[in-house]
Amino acid sequence: MTTVGVLRETAGRERRVALTPDGVARLRKLDVAVLVEAGAGARAWFEDIGYEGAGAVVAGRDRVYADSDVLLCLHPPDDVAACRPGQVLIGLLNPRSNRDLMQRLATAGVTVISLDLLPRTLSRAQAMDALTSQANVAGYKAALLAAEAYSGFFPMLMTAAGTTRPAQVLVLGAGVAGLQAIATARRLGALVTGYDVREAARADIASTGATVLAGPERTGKEGEGGYARELSDDEQSAQQSALDEAIPRFDVIITTAQVPGRPAPRLVSENALSKMRPGSVVIDLAAAPDGGNVEGSIPDTRTVTDAGVTVIGAANLASTVPGAASTAYARNALALLTHLMPRGEVVLDLDDEILAAVVVSHGGALTRKEIRS
Amino acid sequence: MTTVGVLRETAGRERRVALTPDGVARLRKLDVAVLVEAGAGARAWFEDIGYEGAGAVVAGRDRVYADSDVLLCLHPPDDVAACRPGQVLIGLLNPRSNRDLMQRLATAGVTVISLDLLPRTLSRAQAMDALTSQANVAGYKAALLAAEAYSGFFPMLMTAAGTTRPAQVLVLGAGVAGLQAIATARRLGALVTGYDVREAARADIASTGATVLAGPERTGKEGEGGYARELSDDEQSAQQSALDEAIPRFDVIITTAQVPGRPAPRLVSENALSKMRPGSVVIDLAAAPDGGNVEGSIPDTRTVTDAGVTVIGAANLASTVPGAASTAYARNALALLTHLMPRGEVVLDLDDEILAAVVVSHGGALTRKEIRS
Repeated sequence: MTTVGVLRETAGRERRVALTPDGVARLRKLDVAVLVEAGAGARAWFEDIGYEGAGAVVAGRDRVYADSDVLLCLHPPDDVAACRPGQVLIGLLNPRSNRDLMQRLATAGVTVISLDLLPRTLSRAQAMDALTSQANVAGYKAALLAAEAYSGFFPMLMTAAGTTRPAQVLVLGAGVAGLQAIATARRLGALVTGYDVREAARADIASTGATVLAGPERTGKEGEGGYARELSDDEQSAQQSALDEAIPRFDVIITTAQVPGRPAPRLVSENALSKMRPGSVVIDLAAAPDGGNVEGSIPDTRTVTDAGVTVIGAANLASTVPGAASTAYARNALALLTHLMPRGEVVLDLDDEILAAVVVSHGGALTRKEIRS
Repeated sequence: MTTVGVLRETAGRERRVALTPDGVARLRKLDVAVLVEAGAGARAWFEDIGYEGAGAVVAGRDRVYADSDVLLCLHPPDDVAACRPGQVLIGLLNPRSNRDLMQRLATAGVTVISLDLLPRTLSRAQAMDALTSQANVAGYKAALLAAEAYSGFFPMLMTAAGTTRPAQVLVLGAGVAGLQAIATARRLGALVTGYDVREAARADIASTGATVLAGPERTGKEGEGGYARELSDDEQSAQQSALDEAIPRFDVIITTAQVPGRPAPRLVSENALSKMRPGSVVIDLAAAPDGGNVEGSIPDTRTVTDAGVTVIGAANLASTVPGAASTAYARNALALLTHLMPRGEVVLDLDDEILAAVVVSHGGALTRKEIRS
């Protein structure tokens, strides 16, 4: 019988877990054994006793490494050297930014599968799309955080003493996170405007009922996997002028723009920030140590500028809604496992379009050439 | 010319201010001079320069006390002895709990007006109803805080990998704060149930579209000013059983029950808390040093029970949305000022139904007998 192991996440602020008790129950029905590291779900409020009730064995980390055929995680574990040859490691491993680690795992004979390499435009892969499910959670939470930090109301309010205008919210980048942030801010009653460099994404913004902010003319189209491509210098400069002019009109800005394998584009300049009204809020979902969408944003940190603008560097918001995010991730992982183990045993068919995309290493070598350093 | 002075709030966590720059502009149109203490609006993001632009003079605290005919505040200032005889002090002064202070102000010849004594059922007083406007802000923020702290999604979510059920939210107490919490949680997509001991409030809950939680039979009706009266021992015990049974079914509880001049009723027992699911959230808007609606809640503190339930003692939530709350309070104060100074001068007509209710002391004596200790 195949055994799937669930590792406790070791990254400092990470609260998610790769499999929930519901997921355990579904694997058990497929006659798969499940080993869960003690405390793996605790920070997402999934207790060991819940995993045991669903049919898992709760064990120490060493045993999970030793006795699992397949290991589930989100981030690359910091003790990943404990993996055995032939073992399958499945996570959101960000292989493009972790080339050395991928090479070491390949050399060690570990079969590495990274869900962030999934072909997102393939409809039968949608159930496995963990980037989408986690971005969805992050976009939802971004709108909540913005409403929580903002000094005013999001909705219009009519009372005997007068009417309060609704908050003006601008969402930059209309991928999954941006569209969910738009939807949630609209639910709360804000007046929402969206911006994206991609034509298709502008249509998505309009379809939510939000206003579309006009941007500079573009000559090219979308980049890899539906992401925006990087802009040319001229396009960037035109975009910066348009955004610098628009941003100070808004009470709340939520930025969600990413370009895979590249630093996030700078969309909110210090100049634009300095012209926003005191009490405004800016949430940067792309905040990273090497810079995000917002000049001066710091990951996992709330700062207030001299002009009284609160800037929240929100690097890993999905982790702050750990129940919803873990549940969604576990479903994605289960869909992949079901695909990988059609009869309860791992069958690694590298001619399969999905597996060819997500398998990073197998049989002692890196299988995707763009990961090789 | 009459001068209205605005004091900076001195209570530790208080971020609101009693008058906004917009309010200053409206007073200036009535030919009233306005003195604003330096920094009075800073924590609500209203800068001194904004007040000056609206026509106020920004000055030190001593000068505001010395040169104002009318002083505006929210909480009783901690240096209230600086008030002069004949000066009018207007705030949310909670005179029932501050009898000694009221007596000292009366003896000092200060005319004290407390907006929390407003007859809330009088329609022409609605524009002055600061308790309502602040409860409205608190209820809105309570739902946001709950969503922010909850481990899952509030809305139902349908994705390729499956559907997530919406959060089940229970709001206890359906006054202004409770109804706004219900409305905001519903906006976010939660399934909301409301509970109140008052028949009229149950109809209000139903009118929002939320489910009404049935409670024990009541023999009596509402108490003073539309608040619930205290329950008899039998009623309390029946209510406790009904709530203890219902509470563990919910993911989020928001409690807003108050009885004026009495400790808040205990609605969520330790027993009920212990049966809630890990990851659940309880927000106690009545949290107070002498206990709130939730057993063990601590004002301004977030605790997690052994069972994994997050309990947030949210004593003064309006202050955490300082822009919206200050704007609303300023409008209430302006409506009262317009009533009190029909031609730009204070005319204290104690035969007027509104002034008879809100004036606590005048001419060296307490004017409302229930405040006399």
